[in-house]
Amino acid sequence: MSEVIFLSVGIIAGFLAILVSLYTYKKVQSFDEGSDRMKEVSALIEDGAYSFINIQYKILGVFTAVLAVIIALIFGELGVPIAISYVLGSIASMIAGYVGIVIATKANRRTAAAAASGGLNPAFNVAFKAGSVMGLMIAGIALAGLGLLYILWELLIPGVVAVELWEIVTGFSFGASTVALFAKAGGGIYTKTADLAADIVGKIERHIPEDDPRNPAAIADAVGDNVGDVAGTGADIFDSNVAAILAAAILGAAIDAAFSPAVPFGLLPLLIAGLGTLASVVGVFLVNPRPDEDPGPVLNRGTYITTVLFAVLTVLVLWILNIDLTLAAAAILGLFTGVVIGFTSDVFTNDRGLGPFKPVPEMVESAQKSAANLILSGYSYGLLSAVPSVIMIAVALVGSYTLGIGAASLGLGTEEGGIFAVSIAAVGLLSTNGMIMSSDAYGPIVDNARGVIEQADAGEQAIIDCDKLDASGNTAKAITKGFAIAASAISVLSLFSAFLASAIPLLPPGTTLSVDLAVPSVLAGAFIGSLVPPTFSAILILGVGRNSERMIAEIRRQFANDPGILEGTSKPDYAKCISIATSGAVRELLPGTVIAIVVTILTGAILGLSALAGYLGGAVLVGLIMALLMSNSGGAWDNAKKIIESPESPIPHDAPEYDEVHDNSVLGDMVGDPFKDTAGPSINTLLVVISLTATLFLPVIFALNAAFAGLF
Amino acid sequence: MSEVIFLSVGIIAGFLAILVSLYTYKKVQSFDEGSDRMKEVSALIEDGAYSFINIQYKILGVFTAVLAVIIALIFGELGVPIAISYVLGSIASMIAGYVGIVIATKANRRTAAAAASGGLNPAFNVAFKAGSVMGLMIAGIALAGLGLLYILWELLIPGVVAVELWEIVTGFSFGASTVALFAKAGGGIYTKTADLAADIVGKIERHIPEDDPRNPAAIADAVGDNVGDVAGTGADIFDSNVAAILAAAILGAAIDAAFSPAVPFGLLPLLIAGLGTLASVVGVFLVNPRPDEDPGPVLNRGTYITTVLFAVLTVLVLWILNIDLTLAAAAILGLFTGVVIGFTSDVFTNDRGLGPFKPVPEMVESAQKSAANLILSGYSYGLLSAVPSVIMIAVALVGSYTLGIGAASLGLGTEEGGIFAVSIAAVGLLSTNGMIMSSDAYGPIVDNARGVIEQADAGEQAIIDCDKLDASGNTAKAITKGFAIAASAISVLSLFSAFLASAIPLLPPGTTLSVDLAVPSVLAGAFIGSLVPPTFSAILILGVGRNSERMIAEIRRQFANDPGILEGTSKPDYAKCISIATSGAVRELLPGTVIAIVVTILTGAILGLSALAGYLGGAVLVGLIMALLMSNSGGAWDNAKKIIESPESPIPHDAPEYDEVHDNSVLGDMVGDPFKDTAGPSINTLLVVISLTATLFLPVIFALNAAFAGLF
Repeated sequence: MSEVIFLSVGIIAGFLAILVSLYTYKKVQSFDEGSDRMKEVSALIEDGAYSFINIQYKILGVFTAVLAVIIALIFGELGVPIAISYVLGSIASMIAGYVGIVIATKANRRTAAAAASGGLNPAFNVAFKAGSVMGLMIAGIALAGLGLLYILWELLIPGVVAVELWEIVTGFSFGASTVALFAKAGGGIYTKTADLAADIVGKIERHIPEDDPRNPAAIADAVGDNVGDVAGTGADIFDSNVAAILAAAILGAAIDAAFSPAVPFGLLPLLIAGLGTLASVVGVFLVNPRPDEDPGPVLNRGTYITTVLFAVLTVLVLWILNIDLTLAAAAILGLFTGVVIGFTSDVFTNDRGLGPFKPVPEMVESAQKSAANLILSGYSYGLLSAVPSVIMIAVALVGSYTLGIGAASLGLGTEEGGIFAVSIAAVGLLSTNGMIMSSDAYGPIVDNARGVIEQADAGEQAIIDCDKLDASGNTAKAITKGFAIAASAISVLSLFSAFLASAIPLLPPGTTLSVDLAVPSVLAGAFIGSLVPPTFSAILILGVGRNSERMIAEIRRQFANDPGILEGTSKPDYAKCISIATSGAVRELLPGTVIAIVVTILTGAILGLSALAGYLGGAVLVGLIMALLMSNSGGAWDNAKKIIESPESPIPHDAPEYDEVHDNSVLGDMVGDPFKDTAGPSINTLLVVISLTATLFLPVIFALNAAFAGLF
Repeated sequence: MSEVIFLSVGIIAGFLAILVSLYTYKKVQSFDEGSDRMKEVSALIEDGAYSFINIQYKILGVFTAVLAVIIALIFGELGVPIAISYVLGSIASMIAGYVGIVIATKANRRTAAAAASGGLNPAFNVAFKAGSVMGLMIAGIALAGLGLLYILWELLIPGVVAVELWEIVTGFSFGASTVALFAKAGGGIYTKTADLAADIVGKIERHIPEDDPRNPAAIADAVGDNVGDVAGTGADIFDSNVAAILAAAILGAAIDAAFSPAVPFGLLPLLIAGLGTLASVVGVFLVNPRPDEDPGPVLNRGTYITTVLFAVLTVLVLWILNIDLTLAAAAILGLFTGVVIGFTSDVFTNDRGLGPFKPVPEMVESAQKSAANLILSGYSYGLLSAVPSVIMIAVALVGSYTLGIGAASLGLGTEEGGIFAVSIAAVGLLSTNGMIMSSDAYGPIVDNARGVIEQADAGEQAIIDCDKLDASGNTAKAITKGFAIAASAISVLSLFSAFLASAIPLLPPGTTLSVDLAVPSVLAGAFIGSLVPPTFSAILILGVGRNSERMIAEIRRQFANDPGILEGTSKPDYAKCISIATSGAVRELLPGTVIAIVVTILTGAILGLSALAGYLGGAVLVGLIMALLMSNSGGAWDNAKKIIESPESPIPHDAPEYDEVHDNSVLGDMVGDPFKDTAGPSINTLLVVISLTATLFLPVIFALNAAFAGLF
């Protein structure tokens, strides 16, 4: 009975979110598209985005097909179901990304039109509604997808048990994560490639303004914002959410098998995630600014309402179902962790800091000394930004574990209960992702709307309004970035436990898998794992450099071949630039992705399962520091530049030293761009991918290791 | 019987090295001091260095005294012996640093004089001999100190057992490491402070050349090279060496207690280190260039001979003593690891790379695009430089463990034997530190001699000769930096095991301490540990910025108060600059050091011993990546600038874009300076300090944890 309730709440909440998303989508489409010039400008961006999607999804299709065949072949009996789940997970993630790009490109001109005709409030409404299409869609697909897949395989495979079912569903999560890695890291390479190439040839070599339509890379650059910020972040949050629910389900199913409790803990994560999604739907509806209200507080109000509603709902439902409220407490602790880490990212990247601690204003002071001072202070504050976040994760870990150990229905005092509670904290953190992602997607939409207004000459006041909207969007973006890192870190921790739980049936009865760093092979595994995030980051950053070379060559070629482009008499070939940047991005990324998967499998095959767990540990420890360092220092450099460029700049724009200080800040931003938009946020997804690789390929790795050990 | 042999070889080798060092010291003193102008210039540097030493050692004296009292009070019965050992360790490290600074400052003018009068070969001879004074001194003090201390406490404390003896001697290592942290990190802040401040006010504001004696910071800058590069690196290698021997001794003593083998394994590390020192003494004597031979190959020859000699001696002696040769193999594997990691550092920082892989030349290409490209490519290659090094450490770890498990006399097949072999690999890596450090100290001496020649106008040819000598010095320096990181990483690993071994007697009989990352408190400990290297690095880098502010204010004050300084008619107050930079450096460093020690103790007190071990693991995993990233990217930026400035530069110096490219490379070097000379190499020492803190304060932490657990 409660199995049906748990599944239903999850699936119904999922479909509700999808329906609301589709309804809002139609509503957004009904808004005024603005002047012909606005339509013209944004149609180019829309076409460009589709062209990006086409190229990337073709390559991803081949990648997915190859991997699906491999999976079907090596997994024996469960091969085909896992492969199908994997393909479905990839498709779900692609749909989520697609929806994000479509709505973002459609909303740009409509937000611009609303700003031009109605001012602040109507523009906010359009942009936020469009953002919520993406937010609710990814929350909905995750729930509906996981729930339906579970039912599907339960019906199709006779006699299958819950533990096996979740093993099959791991394929879904793996598919979602590999696609997310391409979306996030590939999109990150793409967007920075376009940005860099457009600036170097346009601004520096040819002295034409930013976003000038004569620049063959202008559209690619505009597409990049949608691709990296909307679709990439959406895919990232989506895959973390799926992974968190899955890991908790695996651990819950293990408890079900061991203790046969009154309720199915394997399905509880779906229920909790469902409640979070319901809260998000309500929260999204309540984001309605009063006339002339500032947009920032409105967004925050939505988040607060969602958070409180989720907490109340969870306590209530668990109390009704007679489940230990300690689990509700764990979920709320997880949510709180996300808030703290998001808040930390904000403090380290906004223009105010917190009380007397003002990282970005101090960086602005460094910029007045030299570019090197600015780089060094940004790097240092980026490192320091890891401190509160990582401590909070440690607290959440120990706190939720302690809560779970005290839960009677989980087998009071057992380790399993504690670890399950950790995984519930991860689910709790991500439960309100529908609302979080809605506020996040809003930012790039406003940003692009501003570009449309500028290019369409739609008036000074509309630009000022968009800047106001953009400012609150930036805070939301900083918070989401921290949130995304926290989410994947804690999801990875529960995946880590899920990996260990999945390994136990493979071991001789009575033994458990310990990840003892005092054992040299485990420590060696941890060392190898510690290399994964640095290597991947280096590949991405160097990839941006190489890819922008290709694009620069193309822009120069177009300018040289057709002098009419610069004179404004003939159109540049935008599509060619987009195609070069897209395929180049995938080309740079593919080796890194394959290496990450192969090294994960090889480490386990050669050094054993404990060492593989150590490998995951090493990767998480280093990855978390690097992700926070790069995301936050990049965000801080960006904002330092914005402060210097703003009318409130501490260095007057007509001061003799302004140009040099501004140059320094531009340099900081250029270094920070691939940090915060390419390498930093991709590490989260990378960590999820290698954790899922270890979990999914566990039987294969186990067999390989046995064969390897047999060689000696 | 063999106890006496082992101790004697260690102590005799130690005293031999000290005697040869003193003899060479006298010899160096007998060389020609050069022209009056040379004497004058270098006397200022010498005075400045003493002034630095005076100020730093006063502060260190207070710090040491306070900590000694605390130690004496909290350690019960063993308190006084540990406190005395601690003070002796601090003093030994201070002596090592003092000798380094004295010989370096004395050798500067003598090398300059030899270059001016005799050319390449005589100058090489003076500089290398002076370097060997430092190299052999630190190798000798480590052995003689450890050996004598062991005998001293054995005689003074009736009935003391070996395990307790080594516990007391841990105080010596802790003293050596805390002083080394001040020498390395404090010296690092100092040298970069002086460098930055001298450049900003001198070159940028007042347009006077580098090293111009009118600059009040000129002497502080010159002192910095001796302080950071000679004394700092010496103290770093010294403390790693002491820690490696100590950790191996603790693990060996545990084997002695458990298996009562025929030979005392607790003293074997002293024997092996003694053989390495003997090999170094011979190697140093054989570094004698043939007339007109290039200095690079001569240095390499010395290193090769020492390495081979050590390997042969170890195999021979262990064979004669009938000890498993697997231990000799482990020691040689350790040595090989050091060579590989040093070689990797060289590939990533020299101007050639390895085959088609050319990081620095590619960075030079990036510099032609923009400063941001150069920063990003340096950062990326710095990250990649960790890959071969960390893999080699993983291989050494698993390899030596496997060797040790197979050693019959260690209790065949036991874990203890394997872990002891890992610690022997660490001893092996550091065994030839006398030779390594001799080649390393040579570099800064030549560098300073060049400055003396320039300031004393001693001729163009002498400068060219010094540049040649400097080039081979730079390679040696790059190798030593990698070597130092490898040394401390592997020493920390054996300290990690020593910590675990020391914890066992505190636990209920039959239990062992596992560092299982699957246990949330252990993982939480690892997360907290992972924050230590980033926080410390940020403190150091921000400290350089703040400290240089103070010095800049002082230089400006002097220029403003006395216009005669710039006109060359009155002398600037060099001492004031040195004093500000020195006390400022210690002031920036002290909080970080105290925090590192306190957080280590608190983590253990609150989360328990297993979590404390996890903490050490997290710190090592992140610390190793960060140390390699910062040291190697810094070195690479430095060399990229040198290539651009050299006559063989790919950008002709009269090309229109040269100035911009050169500016970019200067910026890279400015970012890299605190990376490679302050933060990067200090992480090693930091890791040793926190590991020793955990080991030394173990009983205290254990008691605190019991009290803390009692609160709940």
